[in-house]
Amino acid sequence: MNDTFLRACRGESVEYTPIWIMRQAGRYLPEYQKVRAKVDFLTLCKTPELAAEVTIQPVDILGVDAAILFSDILIPVEAMGMKLRFLERKGPVLNRPIRTERDLKRLKRIEPEVDLPFVLDTIKILRKALRRKVPLIGFAGAPFTLATYMIEGGSSKNFLNTKTMMLSEPQLFHNLMGKITEVTETYLSAQIKAGAQAVQIFDSWAGALAPDDYKAFSLPYVKRIISNLRPLGVPIIYFVNNCGGLLELARTSGADVIGIDWRVDIGKAITRLGRDVSVQGNLDPVALFSDEKVLERKVGDILKKGRRAKGHVFNLGHGILPQTPPHMARALVEMVHELSSKQ
Amino acid sequence: MNDTFLRACRGESVEYTPIWIMRQAGRYLPEYQKVRAKVDFLTLCKTPELAAEVTIQPVDILGVDAAILFSDILIPVEAMGMKLRFLERKGPVLNRPIRTERDLKRLKRIEPEVDLPFVLDTIKILRKALRRKVPLIGFAGAPFTLATYMIEGGSSKNFLNTKTMMLSEPQLFHNLMGKITEVTETYLSAQIKAGAQAVQIFDSWAGALAPDDYKAFSLPYVKRIISNLRPLGVPIIYFVNNCGGLLELARTSGADVIGIDWRVDIGKAITRLGRDVSVQGNLDPVALFSDEKVLERKVGDILKKGRRAKGHVFNLGHGILPQTPPHMARALVEMVHELSSKQ
Repeated sequence: MNDTFLRACRGESVEYTPIWIMRQAGRYLPEYQKVRAKVDFLTLCKTPELAAEVTIQPVDILGVDAAILFSDILIPVEAMGMKLRFLERKGPVLNRPIRTERDLKRLKRIEPEVDLPFVLDTIKILRKALRRKVPLIGFAGAPFTLATYMIEGGSSKNFLNTKTMMLSEPQLFHNLMGKITEVTETYLSAQIKAGAQAVQIFDSWAGALAPDDYKAFSLPYVKRIISNLRPLGVPIIYFVNNCGGLLELARTSGADVIGIDWRVDIGKAITRLGRDVSVQGNLDPVALFSDEKVLERKVGDILKKGRRAKGHVFNLGHGILPQTPPHMARALVEMVHELSSKQ
Repeated sequence: MNDTFLRACRGESVEYTPIWIMRQAGRYLPEYQKVRAKVDFLTLCKTPELAAEVTIQPVDILGVDAAILFSDILIPVEAMGMKLRFLERKGPVLNRPIRTERDLKRLKRIEPEVDLPFVLDTIKILRKALRRKVPLIGFAGAPFTLATYMIEGGSSKNFLNTKTMMLSEPQLFHNLMGKITEVTETYLSAQIKAGAQAVQIFDSWAGALAPDDYKAFSLPYVKRIISNLRPLGVPIIYFVNNCGGLLELARTSGADVIGIDWRVDIGKAITRLGRDVSVQGNLDPVALFSDEKVLERKVGDILKKGRRAKGHVFNLGHGILPQTPPHMARALVEMVHELSSKQ
C-alpha cells in the first residue's frame, strides 16, 4: 500500500508530498454524477456499496494518496434524533433546531453499530478494496461546527442564534457541546475500529469566532476528542477553516496535522504553528480554474514552503468546487507528485 | 468639536478611546426605518437632506465620536455606467457584469461634481450640521472589493468569476482595477474637498484572497489611492475584512489606521502590524446580542489590548446587524467611553 500520506501525517520521511483533496469524491466528477443520478444524496451516504464506489473514484481517476469516506458531517446529528434534509439550493436543513434545555433532552446518545451501521460497513468494504492502494480517512464535524447547524437549523451567515446562545446562555451551550462531543468521540472511535487509518475533524465554522470565544467554546471539545482518540494510534487531522486568527490556539488541539485554508500563507502558518506539528493544505480551490502555468507557480510555492513543516500533506484550502474541470484536478495531483519529488 | 476620533487616528493623545460603528446609520434604528419607509435605499443615498438626516441619527442617539456619510460603496460604480439595483433578499445587482475587454470599454471615468453631486451636497450639509459635534468620515470601496461586484454582477460566495479573470486574464483584471482605482481616487478626493475629515476604504472581500494574490491584485491599488490622497492631509482608514492572513501586507498600504475584523485577537494584530500605525476595531457584532456583563468583559479586553497600538479607534469588527437591539449599541458606546477613561 502507498502509505506516503500516513508517513507525512506523522512527520516521517517521504519520497514526495502526498495529496488528497477535500470533497474529492463529488459533483465535479462525471463518474460521481452517474452514481448520484440513481439515488439522492442521503441515500448515497447510507448505501455502503455506492458510498464505497464513489469514495474510490478519485483514487483511480486522480491518483490521490488517500481516500476519504464518502459521507456528511450531519449524519451523526441525524442519528442523535434530528430530522435531516438536503435542499437543492439551501443545503442542509435540520428541523426543530436546538434552542432550549428542553430541546437538548431530545438528543440521543448514539451506538454507531446500531444507529450508523452503514458507515461502518462502508469502511469495511473500502478497506478491502483499497488494500493495495491508499489509506482510508474517516471524519467527523468538530462539535462547534455541528452545533451551528443544530442551533441555526441549517447553514447560516452570521451564526446569530449560535453565538447568542454561546454568550447569553453559556451553560446551555456547553451542555449541548458536551453531548455532541460524546457522540463525535464514539463515532470516530467506531470508524477507526472499523478500519479508518486516519481521521479528520472538520471545524468548518471555527473561523467565524473571535479567538477568545474559540478558545472558550470550541477548542476544549476538540482537545477532548483528540486526547480520547489518541490511544487508538491513528493520525488525527484537525481542519480549521478560516484559521488566520486561530493558528496559535489550534496548535494546542493535540492534532498530528493542522489543516489550513488558503487565506493564510502556508510559510507564515508553519512559523506560527511551530515545528512539532504537520500541516495540510492550502491551495485556493479557485486556482483550479486558471491554467497549468499559474497552477504550477502556486503549487511550487506551497510545496517549497511546506517543506519547513514537520510533515506536509498537500490539499486544497477548502472543498473542491462542483464546477471544477476534472482534468485540472488530475493535473494538480500529477504536479504535486512531480514537483515535490524533484525538490 | 469633539476631535477625539481624529486624534486617535493620528496616534495623538486622547482622554478616552473614541468609537464609531460600521453601518451605524442603518436598519437597526427605528429612527432610520422611519426615514427609509418613505423612500427606497438608493433614493435615500441620493437625497442629500435625507442622507444627512440618517447620517446624524447615530451621533445624537448613540453618542458616537464620528459620523460616516450615509451611502453605498456601489454608488460610484453606478456612475461608471453599470445599472445598479438593490433586491430585498439578494442584495445589490449590477446588470451586464464585466467579463471582457469590450465590457471594460463601457466603463466611464467620473466627474464627482457632475455625476455624484448628491454625495458632495450631503457632505456639505453634514459639515454644517456637525460643526459643534463630531468629525465626518467619507468612504469608498477598495478597488478589489468593487471589482468583485462588477465581475460577479452582485454578491458572491466563492468569487469564481473574479478569481478566474484575475488568474487567467491578469491583464484584463489589472486594466479593470486601474479604471476603478482612478475613479475611487477622484471620488475620495472630491469627498475630502467637499469636507470629509477622514476617509475609510472598505476592502470587504480582500480576505477571500490568498495572501500572494492579495499582494499582486488588491494591495497595489490601495497603496496608489492612499499615496495620492496623502497630500490632502486627512487620516485614511483601511478596513481589511477577514484580515487574519493579510495583516503584515495590509500594514504596507500606507494607511494611518488599519481596520480589523473580529476574527483576530487585537493584541496579536497590533504585534503583527507594528507600532507605527493606528488600529480600528474589533468587537464581534454578535456580542451586542449578549448582556451587558459579557459585553463589558469583551470591551474591556479590546480596550486594554488596544492601548498598545499607536492609536485605537473602537469599532465593531464588521457592520452592525439589522437585528441589533439599539439599547445595546448605546450601552456599547457608553461602556467604551467609561472604561477607556478609567484605564
